Amino acid sequence: MNTPAIYHRPDSEFAYLYKDNLMHIRLRTARGDIKEVGLLHGDPYTLDTDHWQDQPTPMKRYLTTDLYDFWTIEVTEPFKRISYAFKVTGNDGITIFYGDHGVFSFEKSVYDSPDNYFRLPYFHEVDRFKAPEWVKKTVWYQIFPERFANGDKSNDPENTLPWGSKTPSATDFFGGDLQGVIDHLDHLTDLGVNGIYFCPIFKAKSNHKYDTIDYMEIDPAFGDKATFKKLVQECHKRGIKVMLDAVFNHMGDSSSQWLDVVKNGKNSKYADWFHINKFPVSYEDDGFDQAKNISYDTFAFTPHMPKLNTANPEVKEYLLKIAKYWIEEFDIDAWRLDVANEVDHEFWRDFRRACDSVKKDFYILGEVWHSSQAWLQGDQFSAVMNYAYTDSISKYLIKKQIPIEKMVSDINDQLMLYRDQTDQIQFNVLDSHDTARLLTETNDDKDLMKQVLAFTYLQPGVPCIYYGDEIGMDGGNDPECRKCMVWDKSQQDLNLYDFFKHLIAFRKDNQKVLSEGEMVWEKVCDDGLLILSRKLNGTEVKVILNAGDTPKQVTTNQSVVLSNLVTENNHELTVDPKGFALVK
Amino acid sequence: MNTPAIYHRPDSEFAYLYKDNLMHIRLRTARGDIKEVGLLHGDPYTLDTDHWQDQPTPMKRYLTTDLYDFWTIEVTEPFKRISYAFKVTGNDGITIFYGDHGVFSFEKSVYDSPDNYFRLPYFHEVDRFKAPEWVKKTVWYQIFPERFANGDKSNDPENTLPWGSKTPSATDFFGGDLQGVIDHLDHLTDLGVNGIYFCPIFKAKSNHKYDTIDYMEIDPAFGDKATFKKLVQECHKRGIKVMLDAVFNHMGDSSSQWLDVVKNGKNSKYADWFHINKFPVSYEDDGFDQAKNISYDTFAFTPHMPKLNTANPEVKEYLLKIAKYWIEEFDIDAWRLDVANEVDHEFWRDFRRACDSVKKDFYILGEVWHSSQAWLQGDQFSAVMNYAYTDSISKYLIKKQIPIEKMVSDINDQLMLYRDQTDQIQFNVLDSHDTARLLTETNDDKDLMKQVLAFTYLQPGVPCIYYGDEIGMDGGNDPECRKCMVWDKSQQDLNLYDFFKHLIAFRKDNQKVLSEGEMVWEKVCDDGLLILSRKLNGTEVKVILNAGDTPKQVTTNQSVVLSNLVTENNHELTVDPKGFALVK
Repeated sequence: MNTPAIYHRPDSEFAYLYKDNLMHIRLRTARGDIKEVGLLHGDPYTLDTDHWQDQPTPMKRYLTTDLYDFWTIEVTEPFKRISYAFKVTGNDGITIFYGDHGVFSFEKSVYDSPDNYFRLPYFHEVDRFKAPEWVKKTVWYQIFPERFANGDKSNDPENTLPWGSKTPSATDFFGGDLQGVIDHLDHLTDLGVNGIYFCPIFKAKSNHKYDTIDYMEIDPAFGDKATFKKLVQECHKRGIKVMLDAVFNHMGDSSSQWLDVVKNGKNSKYADWFHINKFPVSYEDDGFDQAKNISYDTFAFTPHMPKLNTANPEVKEYLLKIAKYWIEEFDIDAWRLDVANEVDHEFWRDFRRACDSVKKDFYILGEVWHSSQAWLQGDQFSAVMNYAYTDSISKYLIKKQIPIEKMVSDINDQLMLYRDQTDQIQFNVLDSHDTARLLTETNDDKDLMKQVLAFTYLQPGVPCIYYGDEIGMDGGNDPECRKCMVWDKSQQDLNLYDFFKHLIAFRKDNQKVLSEGEMVWEKVCDDGLLILSRKLNGTEVKVILNAGDTPKQVTTNQSVVLSNLVTENNHELTVDPKGFALVK
Repeated sequence: MNTPAIYHRPDSEFAYLYKDNLMHIRLRTARGDIKEVGLLHGDPYTLDTDHWQDQPTPMKRYLTTDLYDFWTIEVTEPFKRISYAFKVTGNDGITIFYGDHGVFSFEKSVYDSPDNYFRLPYFHEVDRFKAPEWVKKTVWYQIFPERFANGDKSNDPENTLPWGSKTPSATDFFGGDLQGVIDHLDHLTDLGVNGIYFCPIFKAKSNHKYDTIDYMEIDPAFGDKATFKKLVQECHKRGIKVMLDAVFNHMGDSSSQWLDVVKNGKNSKYADWFHINKFPVSYEDDGFDQAKNISYDTFAFTPHMPKLNTANPEVKEYLLKIAKYWIEEFDIDAWRLDVANEVDHEFWRDFRRACDSVKKDFYILGEVWHSSQAWLQGDQFSAVMNYAYTDSISKYLIKKQIPIEKMVSDINDQLMLYRDQTDQIQFNVLDSHDTARLLTETNDDKDLMKQVLAFTYLQPGVPCIYYGDEIGMDGGNDPECRKCMVWDKSQQDLNLYDFFKHLIAFRKDNQKVLSEGEMVWEKVCDDGLLILSRKLNGTEVKVILNAGDTPKQVTTNQSVVLSNLVTENNHELTVDPKGFALVK
């Protein structure tokens, strides 16, 4: 038995309160090494008087990665506290006890010793990671406000270019605004989305507005507070939730606070609002958004985005006031946090509390591209932008950089980094304002795009559509991916639009099983046939897809709900390359 | 190579800010499996332009457990942010890359890909786990107030027994009080201790006072606030820190709040202060401190200790006010938290902030007997009562239940559960009011006791002496371990007392190296010879001990500072069974 590969971490994603006093417990073992795992569990205070110590409850072998098998179980205890350990039997016939002091032979002297058990000392609802139901039911739509629609020409910035007249450069303006969004809400309702994630709308210099000048003001080129209030109200009327982008890692260098530092140096009352290593502040320009010898900490090496000192109580108070203001006054439902990983945990804990104090079931989405356990323990974020997850899909289905087994392994690995309820509300983005568009990634292959989407919509976690993807917009990396939305129906891909509508409807119709259902990898074949089933309480939906070069035959007794490049003959499906079927 | 055994967890005890922008990074590999490990590290934003990706910095193989080798390194980065991954070469000659997406062949396409790296996105001082310098310098002394000294007969409770007249039962009173402590502070100063941990002193019914009636009052049998204020002042004058015991998991059933619930049931304004499953509250008595069918949550199955609902904002406000009150009004230096593991994390985060807000470098010690990572990330406790650590010492040196290698493995394993700075202030108790006394554990073998103490004082973490151990008091489990302190010098073991004085002096003289120095296990022999060296910047102290049955010869060119059962001849030491030498 590969005992050094066995891993468990108490009070983490390996052992946590799921809901209703139910604990979820996981164990990691080396792939294919272990025959069975049982959980020994009982009340910490009855170890001496009861006799549960030698009676394991079988655990289920759940997800498998390239290196590991993950075992899971759901348990509870009448007094809301648990002692537990693992009885592990290897394929070599050896049986061991694994608990808080490591690995032992499975013997009475070991399992009778209270100290050898892991503990979850009390099931605290307040510490439980919570996944709001509304988030699970949401299909998001991301809007880059400067490029979605121009609803009010009176607020166009200087030198506004005609809508869609060219592929944008990094500094172009096209006049998109909030009124434009209001004008097109019917488009979103028709599509079926029920959440909008807005890139920043606060006063800033650039077209992307990530260089905030004033967090308390709507950018004048986007509209005013009255317009935004109306926008939120109109969204809520249509059952659409609203998420704003909070750029709290740094400010723009045109903000009054930074300008004061530039002017007054160490005597500025904002001198400690930033991380300044040497006064007066300075840098040597080194091309667009790049500098050398910057005398203060910045986002990346961008001298125009000085990093905020979020540990300074004044800064914290200022930012938390902003966080609450837009919830209290405008009733927004969620914050997306820009460069969230570079801001301190202590700040985010306060942020979480501030938001929770003014709105129930508030959703906090952090921009973190790497492993995010430290932010997803329940005290900080609800979810992260799940690039790490969708990347594995793209690396196999689109880029063919990894084999099918590695994609499945990576997906399983990502799921096991977080609690089940966290996975259910992760934000699954296939593209965004920070990446090339999905269609461009697929080399303008709409069949492939549909397949990727269908597969992604079968995952736990909530999908997000980047504006315009649904009507066939393309574009490489920033700034190309930020083209003006195409509103001329003759230039929209209505077939693709129709596909999105059906896919979203499928997602919403089957939301419960897609959010909470078990992952069952029915077929993961080298020839590209992939069948992923999601199961919950007798309900089962699945995606059958062909990522190979030759048609694949699949028999199913379920009904095809949505498909592409599939022919059906009785219960025989022929799935062509790039094809897929969603069945139920 | 045993790749499934490789483990790292970003932003945890495996990767953390140590001090002064220095990161400590650890990697776990299967024992004896790996030849070398190098850290690839650099700025996250220069992965494309610099060429640090293929230039590993060698990591050091540090501690080894029965299953693992732990590798460590200290690094920094100029812009206070780091991307890092591991180049691991096995004894089988295979080299792999290990990073945020798992294990890969060590290839350019892998190490050139930014996503494959772990991240510590920014070094935040506010998130750094902090170890106050004063704690590292402290040798604690635990006082069970009812049994230390009776300094004021006027406050003796009814039926007070003559001091030391019998071995205590669970319900006896002997009249110990705070004035008694003041009267004997010279004893502590002479001994050399510079911190007192007081078991509860607030108003309560029992002799142990863990069943609090009023957290705002000193128990009348112990004295009053004026006496306590004087006690703290006298301690501080002598350089002695003061730690009180906060029993916030539960209250006593004689508290006014609980009595109100008993009387008014669900209409009590305190109904939500507890976890009540059914009104009216009731239980069936089942012997001392044990009951069945308790209709509310309690500590263990003790109906007299109803569990507090620390998630209730009123309760939280009430308890945090108490936490701050004793710091602000009486200037205490630390709180010890009773049954800390059963209280919610969210409460402890607030508790940490409340304490920090009123006193700098405040020490928070949680009573947790099992793995405590979830409480020791910097946002909650400073340390836990390190029973798990000292248990492994006792299991080998005293009880001979485990082999020497297992003790070393367990010690190393415990050290690797926490950050280095956490290990430096862990509270290393060999006995307490909750366990049998050390002397009794050793079967009244004072040589063995001295050996165990000498070895424990060589560990990182701060030692604590349970009152009376220093003059040879014995006693089995509670209530026997709570005998009255012996003040009659003719009945004290003055030789043992002298030993304690020297040991404490040694600890204080060598505090820096003992707190922060590297652990070097020079000899771990099956025949019982054990040499542990602590090294820091050229300073080296070590303990040489003989846990075997026959004398051991050891050559040293260092000086013996303190020893027992050792004869020295030039640089040749003969260490008899149960003997030890501390050398420098």
